[in-house]
Amino acid sequence: MRVSVLRAPGDLVVEERDVPRPGPHEVLVRVASVGVCGSDVHYFEHGRIGDHVVAQPLVLGHEASGTVVEAGAAVTRLQVGQRVSLEPGVPDLTCTECLAGRYNLCPAVRFWATPPVDGAFAELLTAHELFAHPVPDHLSDDAAALLEPLSVALWACRKGRVGPGSRVLVTGAGPVGLLAVQVAAVAGAVEVVVSDVNAHRLALAADLGATEVLDVSETPLHRSRSTPDVLLECSGSPAATREAIGVVAPAGRVVLVGMGGDEVPLPVSRIQERELVVTGTFRYANTWPTAIALAASGRVELDRLVSGHFGLDRVRDALLAPRTDPRTIKPVVRPGAS
Amino acid sequence: MRVSVLRAPGDLVVEERDVPRPGPHEVLVRVASVGVCGSDVHYFEHGRIGDHVVAQPLVLGHEASGTVVEAGAAVTRLQVGQRVSLEPGVPDLTCTECLAGRYNLCPAVRFWATPPVDGAFAELLTAHELFAHPVPDHLSDDAAALLEPLSVALWACRKGRVGPGSRVLVTGAGPVGLLAVQVAAVAGAVEVVVSDVNAHRLALAADLGATEVLDVSETPLHRSRSTPDVLLECSGSPAATREAIGVVAPAGRVVLVGMGGDEVPLPVSRIQERELVVTGTFRYANTWPTAIALAASGRVELDRLVSGHFGLDRVRDALLAPRTDPRTIKPVVRPGAS
Amino acid sequence: MRVSVLRAPGDLVVEERDVPRPGPHEVLVRVASVGVCGSDVHYFEHGRIGDHVVAQPLVLGHEASGTVVEAGAAVTRLQVGQRVSLEPGVPDLTCTECLAGRYNLCPAVRFWATPPVDGAFAELLTAHELFAHPVPDHLSDDAAALLEPLSVALWACRKGRVGPGSRVLVTGAGPVGLLAVQVAAVAGAVEVVVSDVNAHRLALAADLGATEVLDVSETPLHRSRSTPDVLLECSGSPAATREAIGVVAPAGRVVLVGMGGDEVPLPVSRIQERELVVTGTFRYANTWPTAIALAASGRVELDRLVSGHFGLDRVRDALLAPRTDPRTIKPVVRPGAS
Amino acid sequence: MRVSVLRAPGDLVVEERDVPRPGPHEVLVRVASVGVCGSDVHYFEHGRIGDHVVAQPLVLGHEASGTVVEAGAAVTRLQVGQRVSLEPGVPDLTCTECLAGRYNLCPAVRFWATPPVDGAFAELLTAHELFAHPVPDHLSDDAAALLEPLSVALWACRKGRVGPGSRVLVTGAGPVGLLAVQVAAVAGAVEVVVSDVNAHRLALAADLGATEVLDVSETPLHRSRSTPDVLLECSGSPAATREAIGVVAPAGRVVLVGMGGDEVPLPVSRIQERELVVTGTFRYANTWPTAIALAASGRVELDRLVSGHFGLDRVRDALLAPRTDPRTIKPVVRPGAS
Repeated sequence: MRVSVLRAPGDLVVEERDVPRPGPHEVLVRVASVGVCGSDVHYFEHGRIGDHVVAQPLVLGHEASGTVVEAGAAVTRLQVGQRVSLEPGVPDLTCTECLAGRYNLCPAVRFWATPPVDGAFAELLTAHELFAHPVPDHLSDDAAALLEPLSVALWACRKGRVGPGSRVLVTGAGPVGLLAVQVAAVAGAVEVVVSDVNAHRLALAADLGATEVLDVSETPLHRSRSTPDVLLECSGSPAATREAIGVVAPAGRVVLVGMGGDEVPLPVSRIQERELVVTGTFRYANTWPTAIALAASGRVELDRLVSGHFGLDRVRDALLAPRTDPRTIKPVVRPGAS
Repeated sequence: MRVSVLRAPGDLVVEERDVPRPGPHEVLVRVASVGVCGSDVHYFEHGRIGDHVVAQPLVLGHEASGTVVEAGAAVTRLQVGQRVSLEPGVPDLTCTECLAGRYNLCPAVRFWATPPVDGAFAELLTAHELFAHPVPDHLSDDAAALLEPLSVALWACRKGRVGPGSRVLVTGAGPVGLLAVQVAAVAGAVEVVVSDVNAHRLALAADLGATEVLDVSETPLHRSRSTPDVLLECSGSPAATREAIGVVAPAGRVVLVGMGGDEVPLPVSRIQERELVVTGTFRYANTWPTAIALAASGRVELDRLVSGHFGLDRVRDALLAPRTDPRTIKPVVRPGAS
Repeated sequence: MRVSVLRAPGDLVVEERDVPRPGPHEVLVRVASVGVCGSDVHYFEHGRIGDHVVAQPLVLGHEASGTVVEAGAAVTRLQVGQRVSLEPGVPDLTCTECLAGRYNLCPAVRFWATPPVDGAFAELLTAHELFAHPVPDHLSDDAAALLEPLSVALWACRKGRVGPGSRVLVTGAGPVGLLAVQVAAVAGAVEVVVSDVNAHRLALAADLGATEVLDVSETPLHRSRSTPDVLLECSGSPAATREAIGVVAPAGRVVLVGMGGDEVPLPVSRIQERELVVTGTFRYANTWPTAIALAASGRVELDRLVSGHFGLDRVRDALLAPRTDPRTIKPVVRPGAS
Repeated sequence: MRVSVLRAPGDLVVEERDVPRPGPHEVLVRVASVGVCGSDVHYFEHGRIGDHVVAQPLVLGHEASGTVVEAGAAVTRLQVGQRVSLEPGVPDLTCTECLAGRYNLCPAVRFWATPPVDGAFAELLTAHELFAHPVPDHLSDDAAALLEPLSVALWACRKGRVGPGSRVLVTGAGPVGLLAVQVAAVAGAVEVVVSDVNAHRLALAADLGATEVLDVSETPLHRSRSTPDVLLECSGSPAATREAIGVVAPAGRVVLVGMGGDEVPLPVSRIQERELVVTGTFRYANTWPTAIALAASGRVELDRLVSGHFGLDRVRDALLAPRTDPRTIKPVVRPGAS
């Protein structure tokens, strides 16, 4: 089978590899669609994210869908032929975090495209049956892949306790921000303000349910008509984070989704005076059933985010698209396409 | 009556003033004990805390107890002769925050010793009957005054959801830290680690229930035998805050109690990877009944914190005590003492 | 002014009374629309609800809207001419419950149409400015009145923590059930099953967002395709309550909204084995801002529930409508109509 | 090895069986102490509990401690010679409930002494390493066994959110009630009222931390000086349950721990008017670390509950003790004793 391998920063090749054998509780999946995530781009450009270093050749990609082509001996939940959306992390299920229902914080998790675990830019891969979720026929391959970033957005809204009547500020209208907008609307938010500096993304945000969009290159955040009680920080920009925290209402929640660096100056006296609750998200847990239901019912539009398709031999172009075309939202790799 | 008045930074005088008249729902209280808080010291030294500026003469002191000597016409909850602990803030009861049960966040609150509202370093003062809490006979005047900082500690433990089995780290063994230690123990914490650089305070912490004390001038925090799931940050030190957040367990809570400045660099990627929940405390709400019960039953020792008594004409000495004597924990002003 | 007065069970007359004078924090409101609630019908038929006995003449009606025609001396939030939706209870704001943000549980609350407090079937009434909520121009008078039952539904969904991905069962498709359906959908529920024995109501439920409707005179509840994790019990039927609790998923929530009598046999071993969380609702607190936003944006349809209009002299017909016409959902009294 | 086997209601024999072989993740444990639980007595007397029927010979006992004598090939957490407290249920770790952190609700759980899974009245048994918890040397064998009912009490207090300032009512002073008293005190409850009809148990309750005891054969519950905000119902008596729910304060929590039958009439209108939150407990999850810490530190006294020791050939006497001796609290079986 063919896989796209990152050998070093900027050095990406397509290789032939043996088809992996599924373990007893695993399935072999022919990969249909794989979304490109900012973390893929970061590994491609820098060869590392924090302490995670690409020390040996690595297959990128962790937002994947496909079709089961073989099932391990002990598999009971899936059948050959089933279309699945793949949850990219496999926790140990036995540590303190797993037993407490926080499998996303499992220290022994194996997560695709995080060194040294290979990812999904490949024609075939194996997946644990627990984390290969069947999807309905009418959900596209791309949408099935994008249930992963949708899970990130769902998780952020859960952490922020977005509900009927919430006033939400989403900073950053990239893929996760645009999904956060949609999930906030689904959850009953009555105001959903989105800030960014990219007019194309803001227009899409407005189209997907934002009640107000702010181009913060022109209008500062505090000029918004809304006083948010939930901030979903999806930009990763330290300056945006600081400024946005400053406008959150008393007892509001701040969810740090975007990656802003190891250390960021935060307005602590404001957090104290207003008793804001600040937290971060690390992946997600138990989100797929909801993600599938929301996507399948059309309440969240995933295909709208797809801005281009690329074969395995064009993974480099897919990874560079966010840099080269300001209209890029979510490039999708299709390993089976020629 | 005599009051101690701050006219400018460092400029404190005793004045004669007219005895105030209680409003219909107020009582007139002869003040017994008033604890000195770090905010009193800060106003005395700098004439301001953040945006709160001492622009006109101000009476300091907001941790007070006393005896009711007169009751307003509509007072139903109190009688002349009753000993009371005074909650120093009076919210408007009608704003969004008050209606939601968060009266500590009321933007219209009038809080003693916060400009321009006079405080309790006075022989007499008026208090709203809702916020003058009767105390049992066997609770000392000093202890009745110190229900205020105890409320701060209770509030911190509530925010941190300290409960049976919690592993708590308290950074800073000042009065609030020492009360946080006691409340954490009362709440069922099984590990209570305290860090400071003052040996006297650490010894007192050990005596009051800490299971481990760390002199961080000698031993770094990460050398503790415990991995806390709750951090009660009571030092206000940005360096301590950063370092302490770094040792909190996944899904742990961080409560910022100490005042560390408007902006503090925080380890955001750690907050994200471990999904820590960070919040701050601003005063307290609905804490007095619990504070009274815990102090009255002896489960929290308040008198142990009192490190000196001062008459109205020695308020300056009381305010300087934390700077001049490393064994100072909580100076108490007794306006009625000669 | 004219008012409709209940003198004894079944004995309703229109009287002339003096126009009330608003207190300092009150407004005088010309009443536009008043929804008929099941409790009005109950007082009309039985002269009591539990311990609440109609011992003297009583004005019914507590779901009201109108226009401010006079403002008390201290009123700051409202102006003459403003259209308002009226929250029918005025708590004391100072008791333990109010200070904790649960003003609906205030033991001293004065609530319209609950003996001996007169209600809203009158041409004019006075209301506290805190509880007279301005509504936008495009919201109809009827809709402004029905923000009250919408608040009941919002409160039920909050208690049930309905959110994205919830699977909700609503038993009883009366006005509150039909609003619960809409709020559950707004909150992101992916399955909303409704049970009733009235085909008209079930059809309306399906139209308003139910994903499955069950006529339980034909199909038992356990034949539903859904396994709910939230039950919003809006029928008040003990049999329905028992049966419905039996189908709720482990760790699910059960919210008892309908009034089923003082004592009801509940499946306790099921509640234990599945660790269900059962609670009841008593009115609501802090719901109007959200109710207004949801109604104003069209996400909840209130006018669809109105099944008839009645003048003050036809209040009896309005109260009897639910008994006499199976297509009745929500009769509305218009005191100003001839 | 010798085991005590229940062949039919009332028919208990000691048999010789082969020593079981531990699976790869299991250890073989020489059993030291096994507490007798009410469910053991119920199976012994009635041969069933609800749908769980003793259809084939069953070994009873599920509160056990012992020493590891052999470790399976894949065991990493335990060593031969280690003393352990045994958690009696092994969930599948992969179902929806397990993944959500609620492994106690796992429908596939295998739980000792629940048909057809054999329990611990045996000289040796195998246990999964995840659920065999090492205990410190100074914790007695009996105390290590009684961490199981302590877990029940901890779980009840968590469900009831008992914390500093709580006013707790414990109905029923059997073993779980007496542990609930202790855990409530540990959690910071300021009032802990206990009701029962057994003077011996009430005296023990007072000794273990109750602030008020009520012999309800003489004094009705509503005569208590306390208004509880948490009810921990440990009697299983429908009458006590109803009466106790009636005295709980608004917004209070009711935790049904005792088994009271499939269907129990509950005061639903009271639950609604006061918005009580009623839930039940089913075993526990993730409680052992806290239970060990509390028992090891002496904050909860377990040995005080032990009212008699019995060898394997006297299991019948152990099971009958609660019926025959009113001073019985917790009989303990010691399979290794002659």
